[in-house]
Amino acid sequence: MINSILSDIKRQKPLILNLTNYVTVNDVANCILAIGASPVMSDDLRDAVELAESASAVNINIGTVNRRTLRTMLKTGRTANKFGKTAVLDPVGCGATKFRTDACKKLISKVKFDVIKGNMSEIKSIAEVFCKRKSVQKSAGISCDSDIASEKSFSCDAGHTFGVDVNFSDAITEKNLLQNISLVKQLAQKLNCIIAATGKYDLVSDGDRCFVISNGNEQMEKICGTGCMISGMLGAFVSCCREKKLEAVAACISAMGIAGEKEGKIIDNLFCMTDDILESEAKYEIK
Amino acid sequence: MINSILSDIKRQKPLILNLTNYVTVNDVANCILAIGASPVMSDDLRDAVELAESASAVNINIGTVNRRTLRTMLKTGRTANKFGKTAVLDPVGCGATKFRTDACKKLISKVKFDVIKGNMSEIKSIAEVFCKRKSVQKSAGISCDSDIASEKSFSCDAGHTFGVDVNFSDAITEKNLLQNISLVKQLAQKLNCIIAATGKYDLVSDGDRCFVISNGNEQMEKICGTGCMISGMLGAFVSCCREKKLEAVAACISAMGIAGEKEGKIIDNLFCMTDDILESEAKYEIK
Amino acid sequence: MINSILSDIKRQKPLILNLTNYVTVNDVANCILAIGASPVMSDDLRDAVELAESASAVNINIGTVNRRTLRTMLKTGRTANKFGKTAVLDPVGCGATKFRTDACKKLISKVKFDVIKGNMSEIKSIAEVFCKRKSVQKSAGISCDSDIASEKSFSCDAGHTFGVDVNFSDAITEKNLLQNISLVKQLAQKLNCIIAATGKYDLVSDGDRCFVISNGNEQMEKICGTGCMISGMLGAFVSCCREKKLEAVAACISAMGIAGEKEGKIIDNLFCMTDDILESEAKYEIK
Repeated sequence: MINSILSDIKRQKPLILNLTNYVTVNDVANCILAIGASPVMSDDLRDAVELAESASAVNINIGTVNRRTLRTMLKTGRTANKFGKTAVLDPVGCGATKFRTDACKKLISKVKFDVIKGNMSEIKSIAEVFCKRKSVQKSAGISCDSDIASEKSFSCDAGHTFGVDVNFSDAITEKNLLQNISLVKQLAQKLNCIIAATGKYDLVSDGDRCFVISNGNEQMEKICGTGCMISGMLGAFVSCCREKKLEAVAACISAMGIAGEKEGKIIDNLFCMTDDILESEAKYEIK
Repeated sequence: MINSILSDIKRQKPLILNLTNYVTVNDVANCILAIGASPVMSDDLRDAVELAESASAVNINIGTVNRRTLRTMLKTGRTANKFGKTAVLDPVGCGATKFRTDACKKLISKVKFDVIKGNMSEIKSIAEVFCKRKSVQKSAGISCDSDIASEKSFSCDAGHTFGVDVNFSDAITEKNLLQNISLVKQLAQKLNCIIAATGKYDLVSDGDRCFVISNGNEQMEKICGTGCMISGMLGAFVSCCREKKLEAVAACISAMGIAGEKEGKIIDNLFCMTDDILESEAKYEIK
Repeated sequence: MINSILSDIKRQKPLILNLTNYVTVNDVANCILAIGASPVMSDDLRDAVELAESASAVNINIGTVNRRTLRTMLKTGRTANKFGKTAVLDPVGCGATKFRTDACKKLISKVKFDVIKGNMSEIKSIAEVFCKRKSVQKSAGISCDSDIASEKSFSCDAGHTFGVDVNFSDAITEKNLLQNISLVKQLAQKLNCIIAATGKYDLVSDGDRCFVISNGNEQMEKICGTGCMISGMLGAFVSCCREKKLEAVAACISAMGIAGEKEGKIIDNLFCMTDDILESEAKYEIK
């Protein structure tokens, strides 16, 4: 995907600011360290805004967001934009509660994210928010594929995310692959950012091309936080390769999948990952 | 205890909402995943109340509670009651500070818990709050065994919990077993819920019968969070078996003990636990 | 250093109150348990102040401090002082943001700490705050070595800490060892407390003597939280040996280094650490 991405990260050692949940935060920090970047965590408004100026990327993860920390996320995200820093959103549990869906709506409306990464239920919930009022969208010159927007699994009003896990019926399978690729592409076009939907297949699109990645295994779903670790690492991958963001996101997600496939601990495997391993073991197609 | 409890959990995959401390939260999430249920964490009032409606159980753990999160716990607990969801309380450090004792008093007064699980110091502190004013209790038709309520180790005014660990003098031993069984039974009757006191022997009573469980080993006390993991899993065990709650609680605590006895990591052992293992390795008497 | 320190901790089982970040809090708790002490965590003002009265030591770590928790830290630190309890500060990220530098300034001005432990960037940031206005200091009878205070790497205005990691140019090396020893000694004199600066060499001084410790290895920097674990354990080491605080701090930092040098997990190695191991494997000089 990108020949030198891991050595670039190790050389540049980017500072990644994480406004993230307290459930998986330790693993996020250790992943970022493992690939050679430097993590810092904050939830204070003043502190986080200051850190955003010196960081290379800001990773916003709403896993345990509350009213106070949402304000910190909004202001910090805007600061990241102002200073041209990479911004990543992990919309954990979007669709599970109105509170989380609204939080994502505000964040995506006010902050320009480089990447939004979630499971397919979360991504569908975002698509629902930003694509559902079709007349409004069309009058604004924004098209949204009606075939997809009108599907039941996509346009449900109530949240369809099951807590923070993907809803069984939303999981990416071979059968619904083409439909999900189409949805991911459209949302990427609409939001003008990279959309990454993780699952059995990981879909990564900039609205034009879509990487379909098949690294990883099912056991990874039984480990809390693999998704959050990806978001943290995305800050490092994308900020070190801003001219090839799509490939950087795909490389990051492949790296996590490869680390999960191997014997031993994911974080140790990330620590030992090289550009050669990543290049030779990444399994993907471009659609 | 219950033949099919673990397979029931895996089949039903209940959503367990955790309002819990940030010290052991990752282990709590991973335990819940390991047994086949789905964890979600929140501390925001709006978010947690919404999640309580869709979850199967709410686990409230006061390990790092503060003024704000106590409000979230009270409102979420009441929502769980309103919608008939399983409610579990882990009164971490009750008795160590007035703040924590008061928090438990409020929670137990306003929320109907299915299970309250703590170490013996915490359980005694709760008993003290709810049993000490005997005249009031009697006039209200509530009896409290005077032999126990008047014992020094039980009726002390100041908090007798040592931080979040059991006070040495409160630890359940063979010598004080009968006395502690009696205390646990009484408190269960009084609060009309299941009381589980963990230690060398784990006591689980609905006020009538008391399971005395002897799985586990001493090293588990040297691992931070085994108690919190039990609370999280209790949500899954009890919500999947509401007609046999006492047995479900006993099964959950045995499962953790068995997982701790085996070589390797507790969470891996929970992942591999089956109904057969649980049935054959659970060590308990009913008193 | 101190013959019986680890057995003293195991015998006394001191209660260590931690007002610490949610990134590494689980490891901090497990380290404290591993050496035989008892951890408790809090961020609520009322709860923490109450706990400070019954604890042996208070460990304040600003890794994810915010406005609310800073108030808790200030009040709890003052309570620790009032009751003669050991107080430890870990100024995580001091120098990285004005918010964190100000937080440390307030904490150090209002609370008398027994030990302040940080990486060399954090320690330099503190030195800058408390030593830079030389005229004021001299008029107040406080001397600050002008050779050091005027050095570029020391007296920079902007924060020179790189997130929460040491700035490359600040790292303690053989080349800058004497200069850093001098800085640490001066700061210890000025603040009348023990200053510990960790790195390839760990420097621990009471203003008079300076332990130069060379246990540990580089891989420890790739594990998030080894610094935070030290702060938590410092509470136990110092509170069990208040008449030899300098040696207690040095012993604690050596113990962590030795645990990191060995095969296997740091926490398991701490669990197995004995006074004999510590005495025979500690590598240090006194300057």
